[in-house]
Amino acid sequence: MERVNDYRQIIKDFLEASIAPSPEDPNFEAQLICDRDRDHYQLVSLGWQGHRRFYSVLIHLDIKDGKVWVQKNDTDRLTAQELVEICVVREDNVFGLQPAYARADTEHSVV
Amino acid sequence: MERVNDYRQIIKDFLEASIAPSPEDPNFEAQLICDRDRDHYQLVSLGWQGHRRFYSVLIHLDIKDGKVWVQKNDTDRLTAQELVEICVVREDNVFGLQPAYARADTEHSVV
Repeated sequence: MERVNDYRQIIKDFLEASIAPSPEDPNFEAQLICDRDRDHYQLVSLGWQGHRRFYSVLIHLDIKDGKVWVQKNDTDRLTAQELVEICVVREDNVFGLQPAYARADTEHSVV
Repeated sequence: MERVNDYRQIIKDFLEASIAPSPEDPNFEAQLICDRDRDHYQLVSLGWQGHRRFYSVLIHLDIKDGKVWVQKNDTDRLTAQELVEICVVREDNVFGLQPAYARADTEHSVV
């Protein structure tokens, strides 16, 4: 339980640090979303480029059964690897956006 | 402030009720995400169809400056209209996924 609480804070800090500083632009918004009750965590980018809407979930992490699941990673960063480096135990790290059969080829957990 | 608290509950109930009941399928997950501290609310659908990953933010609502913003609606429902019907004041409802110039043509708030 204590480790899960640590993971909650680690994930929040990780996502917070991932928000690239941007000049004040009312058409651009980076949102940190933390639902600690349901253990869903996201980094969302949204706004307008002229009349064109953009909306993207850059990173989505969950904690399930004490493990950290990478549900989405639309960045060029090795999110799972970075989480291990900042102290998520590798066995507690599930690269969820690979199908289960392919996760076995990673060093991370399968479920 | 009291009205904003009402909106938080209304949004949560609205999204919760929007989760379609589905048979027990380990490859499908509907997530309700509620970040009351930052006032971001989402309904996310994710999982696997065979080896194919799907991930979709179906609805994303925010509360900003006391108003409810529809940031994303990937459903065939008239989310803004439904929110008004379940008692979000129309003037507090911003159809954020239309550019500001087009919002003036709706009956909802522009900002």
